[in-house]
Amino acid sequence: MILTDSEKIKFMKAAIKQADKARALGEVPIGCVIVKDGKIIARGYNRRTHDHQVLAHAEIIAIKKACKKEGDWRLEGCEMFVTLEPCQMCAGALVQCRIDKVTIGAMNKKAGSCGSVINLLNMPGFNHKVEIEEGIMGDECSKMLSDFFKDLRNSKKQD
Amino acid sequence: MILTDSEKIKFMKAAIKQADKARALGEVPIGCVIVKDGKIIARGYNRRTHDHQVLAHAEIIAIKKACKKEGDWRLEGCEMFVTLEPCQMCAGALVQCRIDKVTIGAMNKKAGSCGSVINLLNMPGFNHKVEIEEGIMGDECSKMLSDFFKDLRNSKKQD
Repeated sequence: MILTDSEKIKFMKAAIKQADKARALGEVPIGCVIVKDGKIIARGYNRRTHDHQVLAHAEIIAIKKACKKEGDWRLEGCEMFVTLEPCQMCAGALVQCRIDKVTIGAMNKKAGSCGSVINLLNMPGFNHKVEIEEGIMGDECSKMLSDFFKDLRNSKKQD
Repeated sequence: MILTDSEKIKFMKAAIKQADKARALGEVPIGCVIVKDGKIIARGYNRRTHDHQVLAHAEIIAIKKACKKEGDWRLEGCEMFVTLEPCQMCAGALVQCRIDKVTIGAMNKKAGSCGSVINLLNMPGFNHKVEIEEGIMGDECSKMLSDFFKDLRNSKKQD
């Protein structure tokens, strides 16, 4: 399904709202939503530290919910909006579930696996490729993260 | 912890036992165990089709359980024994949880991400590298898979 720019912004705003929930838990603010036929079918936010669980990345939580909702391990016809470029685990999950497309807010030069360190979404040899769109509300997504880490550094200085 | 060859075989046999449970569900027989201090702390077997869940790969199930048991998203000091070379999602999860080592039964030339299509466990640019050992009970692990697919083809012919 082809989304308009205003729809893309609406869905990235929904992903940012999820990231806000992560921040409220003291987690690195990363959030995402999965969209099908123009509607959000699953949401997720980073809970890794809070849950003591490596699988509690925003993307994995949303993918798990979307599979449950669809009753299928394949998420064909779906797309993800995520505030930060997925890591190698989440990018791998996006290929495995055969999602159509991922729209990314901010890129992650240090660990991103959708073009930064490596691009798992479009790799010769794998049997599925995921379309990527970058930079929807990129400044807002980047600022949210840099503000979080600035606050974290300041609070550590005060300790 | 350095394991002896007979310990490695014991743990791979435990992974094969998990794979047998997958086969009993009609799933591709893939199983794994996670070991710490010479003891199995988590087990998993492939349930992807049965559970309609992309995250129900053997490795993801075991990693989730191990994090829960350890109360930590980091699995440092742990190692995995898995019957088939992990895919890109599971290899990514192994890097993310900072596991020490993965011992692989059979390699997966078509989709394996620990050396076959790509090697995510030892990649410049990522902040953790996972040691790999190949071929422990490799023939048994390969035969288990080829027998499964042979049976599947035969049952389809009879339909």
